[in-house]
Parts: sequence; C-alpha cells; structure tokens
Amino acid sequence: MKLNNSSLKNKTLNNINPNNMIIVMKRHAPRAQAEHVMEKITQSGLQPIPLHGTERTVIAVIGDERSFNIQKVRAMPGVSDVMAVLKPYKLAARETKHDDTIINIKGIKIGGKELIVMAGPCSVESEKQINETAKAVKKAGAKILRGGAYKPRTDPYSFEGLGVEGLKMLKDAADENKMIVVTEAMDFASLDNVVKYADIVQIGARNMQNFNLLREVGKSKLPVLLKRGMSATIREWLLAAEYILSTGNPNVILCERGIRTFEDEVRNTFAVNSIPVVKHLSHLPVIADPSHAAGKRMYVSPLAKAGIAAGADGIIVEVHPNPEEALSDGDQSLLPEDFAKMMKELKLIAQAVGRTL
Amino acid sequence: MKLNNSSLKNKTLNNINPNNMIIVMKRHAPRAQAEHVMEKITQSGLQPIPLHGTERTVIAVIGDERSFNIQKVRAMPGVSDVMAVLKPYKLAARETKHDDTIINIKGIKIGGKELIVMAGPCSVESEKQINETAKAVKKAGAKILRGGAYKPRTDPYSFEGLGVEGLKMLKDAADENKMIVVTEAMDFASLDNVVKYADIVQIGARNMQNFNLLREVGKSKLPVLLKRGMSATIREWLLAAEYILSTGNPNVILCERGIRTFEDEVRNTFAVNSIPVVKHLSHLPVIADPSHAAGKRMYVSPLAKAGIAAGADGIIVEVHPNPEEALSDGDQSLLPEDFAKMMKELKLIAQAVGRTL
Amino acid sequence: MKLNNSSLKNKTLNNINPNNMIIVMKRHAPRAQAEHVMEKITQSGLQPIPLHGTERTVIAVIGDERSFNIQKVRAMPGVSDVMAVLKPYKLAARETKHDDTIINIKGIKIGGKELIVMAGPCSVESEKQINETAKAVKKAGAKILRGGAYKPRTDPYSFEGLGVEGLKMLKDAADENKMIVVTEAMDFASLDNVVKYADIVQIGARNMQNFNLLREVGKSKLPVLLKRGMSATIREWLLAAEYILSTGNPNVILCERGIRTFEDEVRNTFAVNSIPVVKHLSHLPVIADPSHAAGKRMYVSPLAKAGIAAGADGIIVEVHPNPEEALSDGDQSLLPEDFAKMMKELKLIAQAVGRTL
Amino acid sequence: MKLNNSSLKNKTLNNINPNNMIIVMKRHAPRAQAEHVMEKITQSGLQPIPLHGTERTVIAVIGDERSFNIQKVRAMPGVSDVMAVLKPYKLAARETKHDDTIINIKGIKIGGKELIVMAGPCSVESEKQINETAKAVKKAGAKILRGGAYKPRTDPYSFEGLGVEGLKMLKDAADENKMIVVTEAMDFASLDNVVKYADIVQIGARNMQNFNLLREVGKSKLPVLLKRGMSATIREWLLAAEYILSTGNPNVILCERGIRTFEDEVRNTFAVNSIPVVKHLSHLPVIADPSHAAGKRMYVSPLAKAGIAAGADGIIVEVHPNPEEALSDGDQSLLPEDFAKMMKELKLIAQAVGRTL
Repeated sequence: MKLNNSSLKNKTLNNINPNNMIIVMKRHAPRAQAEHVMEKITQSGLQPIPLHGTERTVIAVIGDERSFNIQKVRAMPGVSDVMAVLKPYKLAARETKHDDTIINIKGIKIGGKELIVMAGPCSVESEKQINETAKAVKKAGAKILRGGAYKPRTDPYSFEGLGVEGLKMLKDAADENKMIVVTEAMDFASLDNVVKYADIVQIGARNMQNFNLLREVGKSKLPVLLKRGMSATIREWLLAAEYILSTGNPNVILCERGIRTFEDEVRNTFAVNSIPVVKHLSHLPVIADPSHAAGKRMYVSPLAKAGIAAGADGIIVEVHPNPEEALSDGDQSLLPEDFAKMMKELKLIAQAVGRTL
Repeated sequence: MKLNNSSLKNKTLNNINPNNMIIVMKRHAPRAQAEHVMEKITQSGLQPIPLHGTERTVIAVIGDERSFNIQKVRAMPGVSDVMAVLKPYKLAARETKHDDTIINIKGIKIGGKELIVMAGPCSVESEKQINETAKAVKKAGAKILRGGAYKPRTDPYSFEGLGVEGLKMLKDAADENKMIVVTEAMDFASLDNVVKYADIVQIGARNMQNFNLLREVGKSKLPVLLKRGMSATIREWLLAAEYILSTGNPNVILCERGIRTFEDEVRNTFAVNSIPVVKHLSHLPVIADPSHAAGKRMYVSPLAKAGIAAGADGIIVEVHPNPEEALSDGDQSLLPEDFAKMMKELKLIAQAVGRTL
Repeated sequence: MKLNNSSLKNKTLNNINPNNMIIVMKRHAPRAQAEHVMEKITQSGLQPIPLHGTERTVIAVIGDERSFNIQKVRAMPGVSDVMAVLKPYKLAARETKHDDTIINIKGIKIGGKELIVMAGPCSVESEKQINETAKAVKKAGAKILRGGAYKPRTDPYSFEGLGVEGLKMLKDAADENKMIVVTEAMDFASLDNVVKYADIVQIGARNMQNFNLLREVGKSKLPVLLKRGMSATIREWLLAAEYILSTGNPNVILCERGIRTFEDEVRNTFAVNSIPVVKHLSHLPVIADPSHAAGKRMYVSPLAKAGIAAGADGIIVEVHPNPEEALSDGDQSLLPEDFAKMMKELKLIAQAVGRTL
Repeated sequence: MKLNNSSLKNKTLNNINPNNMIIVMKRHAPRAQAEHVMEKITQSGLQPIPLHGTERTVIAVIGDERSFNIQKVRAMPGVSDVMAVLKPYKLAARETKHDDTIINIKGIKIGGKELIVMAGPCSVESEKQINETAKAVKKAGAKILRGGAYKPRTDPYSFEGLGVEGLKMLKDAADENKMIVVTEAMDFASLDNVVKYADIVQIGARNMQNFNLLREVGKSKLPVLLKRGMSATIREWLLAAEYILSTGNPNVILCERGIRTFEDEVRNTFAVNSIPVVKHLSHLPVIADPSHAAGKRMYVSPLAKAGIAAGADGIIVEVHPNPEEALSDGDQSLLPEDFAKMMKELKLIAQAVGRTL
C-alpha cells in the first residue's frame, strides 16, 4: 500500500529547482550554529546560501526542499524560524499543470464550461423515496444522483444508512433516469461495495485526512469527490487531493462545504472565497455544497448562487420529497419544487459568469 | 450621553409578550431551588411556569425577559442551563418591522431594487489621487465615493490618514463628480469632523463594539455603514445596530467584510452566508465588502459577484489608480480598468437575481 | 453488545424521564402548525406540552428525545427553533455514572490520585532510539511508553512509520523497562497489529470521528486513549467516547491536545479549560498532551504544568534522544534531560493539587 | 495627531540591521519584474539581494523594513509572496529589552517573583457591595481592588455602570483596605475620570485595537492593564502594547482573558499557551483572567491554577458577595469564601513554580 515516493518524484519533479526555503537564525546566534545548519542542508543534497546581517543570519536554500524534513531544521540550535517558499503539493498545483482538469464520466464533463449539478437525498431511505427524487431532480436538470448508503453520524444512536441495499436502489434509480451516481465511502469495507455501484466516490469531510482511505480510493481509479474537512486549511485540502493524485488517479473533484467557525446562526460558514483561491492554486475542478453550509432550507439557494457566481464548476445539493420524514438532514433538504425553482435561477447566474447549465 | 432605556422600552416594546426564557434545573435539584428561582422571576414581573419531570424540572417564563438579567438566573443554586427564546435585539429585528428598510440619501436609495456601489481608495492620499479615482469609478457606475481620512492601523508606525485635509479632498472630488461620500469615523474627535463632510459615516470592524461611538454616531442622524467585527457573531452585529437604532436613528446599513478563521490563504473568510441570514433576521440593508475579505486584487471580483448573488444590496470596494504606490491596502485595490470590467459583470449578476445596477 | 440500540436503551435509560426538548414556534404561526408538531411528537411516544403566549407558542416535550430525530422537527412548517435539554451522550455522562472511572492496566491506575505519565518518541525509528528513550523516561518516572508505528501525515511524501517492526521494537523496549505500551491505530489494518502489542490503543485527532474505527477499537476490549479532534467540540468528543462505550468497553481515556484557532504563533491552542469542563460533564479520566499543543520544545513544560494544575489525570509527552534527527515532530520533542527536569517540577504541581506523581 | 515616529526610531532602533524581508517572485516571472521590485527597494533606502533559481527569483532585503510598506511590494507585478522576518513590534520585544519589566506601583511590584492578585466585583454596584468585597479579598491576600464603573455591554439595554460615583466608591473601599485600584476606561470621556481614581487603567478586550485610546492612556503615564482582544493574535496584542509603549509609557501589563473559538461549552477558550509565548517574545508582565475565560464559577479556580502554573505573573478575578444579585457577570463571580479557598490553593501552585503569593 505504501507508495514508492522516490520513483514518483523522479518522474514528475525532475525539473523543479526553485529557491525554496528560508531559514532565519536567532539574533546574535553564534556563527557556528549557522554553519551547523548549512552543513546539514548540504548533506541533504541542497545548497545553502547564507546572508549575514549585522545582527542576524538568514540562510536561503536552493533545491527541492520537499525531499527535506523541515521540522528537523526547526529543531536545530540557533534557528528562530523556517519559512517554506515552495507549495508542499505538486500534482495538485496549477504551477505543475497549467490547464484546467476536465473529468469526463460517461460523457458528463466536470470542470468544463457547462456546470454540473449533483442532487438527491442525504440518505437513501427506500426505493420509492429515491426513485421519486431521481425523477424530479433529473427533470429539473441534475445529471448526477447523490444519496448516502453509509452515513457517518456524530451520535452513535442515529440512522446509519441502508448499506448495499441502499446502493442498489440508488444505482437502479440513476439508471432508470439516465443519471450517474455519486455516493460516499466511509472506510475500506464500504469502499469495496461503493466502487461496484458508484460512478464517483465521495470522501466526506470527516475522512478528508483518513490518508489510507485516500490512497485506497485513488487506486480504485474512479473519480473522487473530495469534501473539504470542516477545519482543514486550503493547503491541507490540496495535500489530501495530492494523496489521491499520487496513486496515479488524476480525477479529483474538490468540494467546498463550509468550515467551522465561531458563528452559530449557521451550521457551517460557507467559505466561498476558497473557490477562486483553489481555482488559482490548482487545476482541479471545484464544486459547492450549499446544503451542508446552509443547514437550513431557506439559505440553500442563495449559497448555491454565490458558489456559482464565485466560479464553482457545479453544485451538490440535498433534495427530499418529504423533508419532515427524512431520516437525516431533513432541515436542510430542498423540496423538489424548490429545487426546480432554484435551477431556473442558477441558469441565469451561470450565463452571467459565462457558463451554461 | 446615557440613553434613557426605560422610556424607549415603554414606547416600542409594550405589546411584546412571548414565551421567552427556558430555565433547566439540574437533575434531582431539590424542589426548593426551583421554587427560589420562580420566586425571583415573579418578583421581576414575569410569570414562571414549572414543568416537573421525574428527574428534572424545567421552568418556562412568560413575559419580556429582555427586562431581566439572564445571568442572575444562571448564578442561582440548582440551575443547570438557561435558554433565551427571544432575540435580544428588537428594533433591528424583522419580527418588529416586516418591510425592508430603504435608506434614501439625496435621491440615492440603499436597500431597494437597485444595487448600490461604493468605490474609491482605502485612504485619501492627494487631490490628484482622489479626483482621478472618483472620475473613474463614477464613469463605471459607482454612486458613492469612499476614502479614508482616519485609518485605524494595527501597527503604530503605519500611515494614519490625512485627517480634515483628506475629508475636504474627498468631499470636493465627490461634488465634482456628483457623488455622495462615505468615510470612517474612528472616535468622537474624528466623528466631529466626519459629520461635516460625509453623507454616510462608516464604523469600522474594530469599532463595532465601541458602544459609546455607536450611540454618538446614532445621534448624528446621518446614515451609518456598520461593518461587522472580525470575530462578531451575527447576533452581536445586530445588537451593535440596535445601539444605533435605539438613539432614534433608523438608517443603518450593515456591511459584511469577512471574519477571522483558521484559514491563512486569505486575509479574512468572506462569510457570504451572513447575507441571507441577516436579510432573514433583520429588515436592514446589507452590503458586501469584497476587498477586505479577499485581501488580494484577483479575488475581489469573484467575491463581489458571490455577495450580489447571495442577496446583498450593494458592494463597497477599494480602487486605486496606482496600487503599488498606495499608502494602505495596495495589494487588494482594483485598478480603475479592473473595476470597470467588474461592474459590467456585476450588472449581469444583478439581472440574474432580479436587481438592477 | 452493539449495536442493538433499543436493547441498550432499555437497559440503561429506562428510568430517565426528563423534560428535554423545547420547540419554539414562529411568531404568529397558525395554531394548526403547532398542532401538527404536537401530533408528530405524540406519534413518537413522547408527550408535548404547549405553552401559548400572546404572540408565539412554545412546546415542551416530556420523554426521552434521544429516541427522536430532532432534525425532523426543525423541518416542520412553523417551527422557529428547537432546543435540546438533554445531553446527547449517556454512558459518558457523569449524570449516568457519578464516580470517577479509574482504569487499571497491569496494576497501573489511570484516573486515580496518582498522575500517570506517558512518554516516548513521536515515531519509533530504531531499536537503539526506542530503547534509549524508554530507559531515560522510565528513570525519570514515566510508566507508559509511547511511540508511533503508523503515522498519519498531512503530506503524502512524509515518513509513515515502521509498521509491525516498529510495534515489536516498542513492545521489547517497554518490557525491558517494565513499562506498558500506548500506540496509535490508524485504521482496521493497523488496529489488527496494534492490539497484539499495545496495552492502550491510541485513536488520533484526525480519527476522532472515524466512527467504524471507534466501534472496532471498542470491540478490542483494550483501553483506548481518545484524542480530541482538532476542531471537535467537547460535546462531539464525548459522543466519540460514547461510540466506544456503547460497544461495552468502559475503558476510555480522553486526551486534550489543543484545538485549531486563528492563532498562528502556536501549533494548536491548548484548550486547558476543556479539562475541568470534561471532568464536570463526564466520569472518564482526562490527560493532557502538551507536545502537540506547544509545537515547540520550550513551551511543553509550561503547558504540562497548566494541564496538571487544571485537573488532568496525567500527561502524554514526546521525548527524543536527538530531536534534530527525528523523522517527525523533532521541533516539539523534549530531550531526555529536559524531560527529567520537567518531571521534578511536575511533582511539585501534583502535590499542590493534592495528587501524587 | 500623527506621532513623530522618526525621533522615536532614532533613539531606539539605530542599531538594528537584520536581513528582514524575503520577496518571492512568481515562477517564470520576467526578469524585468524582479528588477522593478529591486529598484523600488533601493529607492526606499534598503538593499535588495536577488537569488536567481532556475524557475524563480527570491529577493532578500537588508535594512529595517519597518520603515517600509510591505503591502506596496505585494501589489507589484510578478510578486508571489512577501515574508517579513523582523517582528513588527520593537519596544515590546524581548529582543529589544532582555530583562523582565517589573512595574512598581506604590510599592506593589508586578512582574517580579511575587505574584499579584487583583480581585473584586465585575461592576461597582453600591458602597456596601464594594466595601464588603474589598475587605474580604484583601483579607484573603489580594492587593489590588478591581471593579467597573463603566461597562461596555453587548446589549444596549443592559446595566452600564455607576460612572464617577462608582469610581469614588471604589477608591474609598481601596483606601480603607490599603489596596490600590484597577478599573476600566472605555473611551476618552471615561478615561478623564478614571485617571483621577485609578492606579492602573484597564483597557478591555473590545478596545484592544481602539488605537487612539491606547495612545491617550499611554499619555496618562499610569500603568495600563491591556486585555487581549477576543480574536486578537499574539502579534496584534503586542502591537497594541507597542502603541502604548511608543508614547513613552513603559508600564504595560498584558492580560490573557480567553479567545473566541468554535467551542460553546465555555464562554471563551482560555489560551493558556499565550502565557509562555508572550513571556518568550516580550519582556512585559502577563496576568491571567480566569473569570472571563471560565464564564462559570466552578471553572475559575482550575483556570487560575493553570495560568499560574504556565508562568503568569498574577491573576485578576471577579468576586461578589451575592452573585445572584450581581448586575453583571454573576454567573462567573466567586463568593468571598470560594476566593479565600482558591488563594490558599494558589499559594501552593506559586511555590511549585518558584514564585510567592
């Protein structure tokens, strides 16, 4: 399961050679301490360039510091601070691949000019529920059917999904409506089942740093919808994508779903600015999840519009034919008629930003 | 300076009488403790209604708890938790005033169907700079000229504004271009000057809980642009508006400018969800400040679009003819040509959400 | 024992009957909407008690709402807010079990009067390294040896541990020094190996909500060291403990290791107040991890003292004989001599709070 | 209004000449852009040193960048990132003044070996209340009497203090018990009164970035207790101290009172790690405010102990003879007997860390 990093590096990083680490020595640190640091850097195959000020020495490092353990330097005597210049992710970086990644799944393209809508219930609850929802969201313009068969729940006494039975219902409903399927895998066991029925595997916010799961889903070769962890920085999110990409699976779709802050009027703070930031830093497609950010039905549509206006490549949204009977997330699920209305409005926003829907 | 709250309350709150406070006693707390709590509530002119469970007593309170110090109850023996049902703000609440507040300043309406754009440099730096900027932003569609003459600076060694000279330059540039002026007051002293030149007084994020300043600006009777504090909850923001409203000044414009979170790729996290939430909870107009949220020029336009798409009544944005010479906020200031381009794109978003620009 | 929740509930919750959910209807919501809500509550086997105010109805609910999906109520028409009175965790709550839980592992007691110290390197790197460390920390007073054989790493190109070989080295070093072993399991695969060598299984911060792993480690019957997730609330942390407890494994040790905030001078914000709060809400033992909170060696000792002073039942701390060669966490690892010095100082703090070390 | 910084700089900063700013150009940015940046730096009297990598240029800057506007550089074409090496505060930095600052007020020393305790009610409410409290806290070992006469309140309808009458009562109670007085000034008006009665002027968390107030209180020459803002970074807190120090007033006492995070079981997250961090970065004394961090009486004592154990130079704590009648903060006020008990326990902690009380 362990990746052979060195061969990967040889293939992809051969020609990167920036100035990339700055080491700041403490004020009046003895010259010998700076020399010790430089010796260690040289031993690592990197080149140190000292800049001696009247009060303090700064050492710039030439080479690829990603092969180097930055914490080791922090632990050396006399070192005040270490600043990394190079982004720690490579395959996910736009610096490495300039053009937008467009993922083509059975003719449905994610990351291109056309926006993509994934819709469906939080959980698959019954054949009737999922079929009814699939029909309604397809009619309103969604191309991808969502629905959970395995539900991570904060509370051990909550509904946890129908498992394989749910996956089958989901797949049947999608087939009947000529849709494709996105659904979540929580662990190795559910992943084994999910890959049999899903076109896109979702990795949930709580698993964004479940690193072995990231590698395993990478190896499945299926496209992956990678939700941002609820307290993950953008850097950590892109490093999580890097885990998947580093297995040779290039099909990662990022999903902003809100972060945890001090604000308590909303379930999560929809970090809409991450959308243009990620589009700038990375070539990967990004979609918005307004449902989990909103937490309440009435806020879903404004957040969906904001996400599209900010440059998202699509949305994933919860729809339920009877929210007050939903076994999970009823309070943030749209009714099919609300969804249809929102889709009409989103088409206008899409046009306003030069996209289609 | 102190407001006579009691007369205000008599006028505005006479007819509010909800069930509004829930007191949860500890499990197995002696009956006498619940009785003590109820006695105190009765003495305050409110009516306690006990619900005795087999393990625990809960006391609902009828009356207006806003006349009551909730912390006192928390300090009583046997009390486990106290939950307030009623929102602590009144004049700012949509429950109190159902229709949107529209503020009319010299014929320019804020909060109506037409979106409002406030633009200009972070700081007024010279006659030439402010005139050039005013002309450019007016031509592109801005109706309100912004520019700081008093700058709160984190670092005591930074540029702090031109003071009264800056206000005069700002006013002249606005007059020449048939615009009106919004500018920040930092304290009582700068407020004295600001009210002579401004049409709208801005209260900055750091002063959102400078309560005496809120009252003083309220008494000026000028419309107030109230920025959200960088770690203020929506509830605290509306309570800050309440301070101004409670002086009899109904013209408060809220401004979302991003909150502080763990994310460090951006200057602030643009909390776009606060826009629909505030529109739901309050009747006051809300505008978006994409510049301070973005921190970098390239992210300003996507955030402006997101704000409008989410329902904002307008934007306030920093524009500078020569950002690399700007004395403050150069890295987030748009060039006049970028601003003009953004305005064209915003018009399309405005139309998509049924507004005009 | 899992997870027939209904039988569990029958056994443990039979006699809980508090007033425990408060439903606040919207102002002027039609009476029929309140009646619809009450009907649904009655159908769930709970008893609704309406309180009609002049402007608003509030409904108190009698019964155990934990059998009830609170989100369903939020999704009903006319509902403004729902407040839960009852804590959602049961087995972890001090209300359920009054006395402190003391966990006895081969004669070492965690949660009693004597404080417990777990020490060792971040990662097991070699026999020499772990033996040297074990000897040093044992001599200074540590009874439990820590060391990672499986390392979750944010960056896919970092050292990930020695696996089973590391576990063997760790176990040998512990045996030789008459210590017991705590080490982390990252997933089902590593758990299979960890249970063969460990006396306590650590669940790391990133896995605090890996719910299937929580259940699986619960079923191992080994004591579990459950680290707080970096953005987990105290409530979520206790619910994660509840997952383990609900499998019939009562031996959960909580571990505060710092939370993520806006502060960037430190790696994490050591939330020392969680220690007395958790001791109040739960009967489980709590230890402090000053190393991950500090991020830098020089702050480890002050935080360890703060944790003990606030009531922690012990600490877990990283020690490395040569931090600048450490493969992970070198910058926050204590040298053996620093550790010995800190232990002497901690003994004094222990005495000051009526504990021993 | 503007401070004459240059003379200040001449006196204190003459001999600082570190390497202190690192400018990272974008990958493959044209050489001309780097040259433009270097030209601007040279014009500012600083010396640029370019390091040309194969893919990217990095420019180190020699000189004191604090005389230079870092944002200007960020706004230049081709610039990817700018990193400041030098701390932006000077007078507050331990690098500038190595020895601990000890503040002597009428023979009471703050920052020395002996810990200092400030105690009293949140608000001065009556002569009886303040006299009773003063007597009790003095007897238990407090040397400084706290009590608010001007109260910033989130809610405009709350009790706001007795003003000058309160100050007089406070001063009389202190005199009678041979204590000195610390009390809060909210603005210029209250500062005028506070300086007549106080020995130490408190600047509250909400005013930590009220920069003109910081300068004004600096000019009063009285010692200042500077509370950390609820979302202020340590860097911003020290910059706020710098404002006061830069007026020539060297007597600043820092006060950690908890920061705002996502956690909702506590009023604030007591950031105990800020204590050793600030002691490392600065020479100023730091005290802990366990009352505002705790929010509830039962957590005050554990947090006070944690603060002292982590290295604080004292505490400030709320005590009220009858908390359930307190007009503010009743739920977090200690009873006099609780305070006396805590003081005994704190003496033991003080001894354990080599201090006295």
